[in-house]
Amino acid sequence: MYLGIDGGGSKTKAILVNEANEVIGTGLAGPSNPLHGVEQAFTSIRLSAELALEDAGLPRSHIRNLIVGAGLAGVNLPDLYQVVDQWEHPFADFFLTTDLHIACLGAHGGGDGAVIITGTGSCGYSNVKNRTLIVGAHGFPFGDKGSGAWMGLEALKYALLSSDGLAPQSPLQARVEQHLDAKGIDMVGRMATATSSRYARLAPLVLELAEAGDPVSLAIAKDGANYISQVAEKLLAQGPERLSMLGGLAPRLQQWMAPEIVVRLSEVQFSPEFGALLYAKQQLKQLVKTA
Amino acid sequence: MYLGIDGGGSKTKAILVNEANEVIGTGLAGPSNPLHGVEQAFTSIRLSAELALEDAGLPRSHIRNLIVGAGLAGVNLPDLYQVVDQWEHPFADFFLTTDLHIACLGAHGGGDGAVIITGTGSCGYSNVKNRTLIVGAHGFPFGDKGSGAWMGLEALKYALLSSDGLAPQSPLQARVEQHLDAKGIDMVGRMATATSSRYARLAPLVLELAEAGDPVSLAIAKDGANYISQVAEKLLAQGPERLSMLGGLAPRLQQWMAPEIVVRLSEVQFSPEFGALLYAKQQLKQLVKTA
Repeated sequence: MYLGIDGGGSKTKAILVNEANEVIGTGLAGPSNPLHGVEQAFTSIRLSAELALEDAGLPRSHIRNLIVGAGLAGVNLPDLYQVVDQWEHPFADFFLTTDLHIACLGAHGGGDGAVIITGTGSCGYSNVKNRTLIVGAHGFPFGDKGSGAWMGLEALKYALLSSDGLAPQSPLQARVEQHLDAKGIDMVGRMATATSSRYARLAPLVLELAEAGDPVSLAIAKDGANYISQVAEKLLAQGPERLSMLGGLAPRLQQWMAPEIVVRLSEVQFSPEFGALLYAKQQLKQLVKTA
Repeated sequence: MYLGIDGGGSKTKAILVNEANEVIGTGLAGPSNPLHGVEQAFTSIRLSAELALEDAGLPRSHIRNLIVGAGLAGVNLPDLYQVVDQWEHPFADFFLTTDLHIACLGAHGGGDGAVIITGTGSCGYSNVKNRTLIVGAHGFPFGDKGSGAWMGLEALKYALLSSDGLAPQSPLQARVEQHLDAKGIDMVGRMATATSSRYARLAPLVLELAEAGDPVSLAIAKDGANYISQVAEKLLAQGPERLSMLGGLAPRLQQWMAPEIVVRLSEVQFSPEFGALLYAKQQLKQLVKTA
């Protein structure tokens, strides 16, 4: 049996299929980005697999029969990849790759292509004729332009400047204050230890006001969308047949992206966790061929 | 005996004076910004006082005779002020205020005035006829424009964009990579859990290249300096007799600040920890007067 895992900074999704490729169970566990804790990542991966087995009406002990493909956030860092890859995992086989790779495999049904992900974070990825390019995927707070977390950070920066009278007026200040139930310096207390997902919850305020024509919000949204267009150009220069956008912000960002990019976008075919499953099958086939 | 304490995100300085106001001991301990841990703050404050006593050749038990003025980062947040103010401290008296207030008291010899601090963080503060104004002091990563941490964050953001080919070329990329001993995505690994002081260590790279005329670095430096000029304007509108700049970046930022602001700047008279001491004396006098 094959299990596909999509592991990110807030949750881990597992999908279990039978030999006919039919989904027989799914599991959902906590975060598994090893950058924020390797042990937590292992725990979440294992739990998501056990929950998928239970969901399929199978005993947890079947975990040792599973051939697992896992795409994790954070393992684009070579050191972290090593650490996770050397895990004494409980599965029959464990094929590790990045969350970007499985998203790309899923989006294009296991074939070559490129993807841009704009959710809590942002990044671009292409895989064309065994050549891989990653654009962005740098993380919060220094990277991930155009993402929800970045947009939320920009919104908070604006609201704080504006509350000091050092920025042009915009309803965005009041909306952020309302969302945080705090004004001025008290917004800082609310967000002092906030994670990137917490920041991303401010992004819809920017998007709504931008769509209503507020210049401050529009400037933030356009700045983000412009970066995503630049990422798309880099990816398209690799010559992928297909380019897809994934993630919560993808549909709404497109209105401010370069129109010549938007017309090049293709629909996503399968989910990232299904992409992880395809990855495990490809890797096993490769192993069998080599042997 | 009076003890003045200046407590920040990286260290806590204590200064001990005798009745003739002569410095008889100093102490240096770890961080005491309660935003990053209230217990740590209490430990550092106590230790800095004990070290100052030891430095003066006095037993640590004299701690209970000390009249202490303390200015701490973070207590501009009302909730945190409450928590620290309710501390069962080991001193005879403990007068708490913000790091901004003691910097201002120190800079102007205990009198009214305004200060701008641009070190690891940035902020403006004025105290004129019992009216206080705080501008900025929002913290990293969403505030503190013009500070060392902000400048370092901008440098890293640039270096990451540039390593993806999505920013104009500048020697700043190579300088950041060299400083971090990492390129591209590996820079992320180096800075993933970095504190604001770690970011601030990148600021000199920006300042050096800006002074050498590099357009990318110059744009960052000017953006920061322009914000600091705006903060100064807000403070000057309160009518302070004196405005001073403090902090590691203060001398070098001035070359890009508005000249009409720079000519208004006055030299600092005393250190913030001395300002804390003046605060304790003022508060005690007030108490005696009231009683």
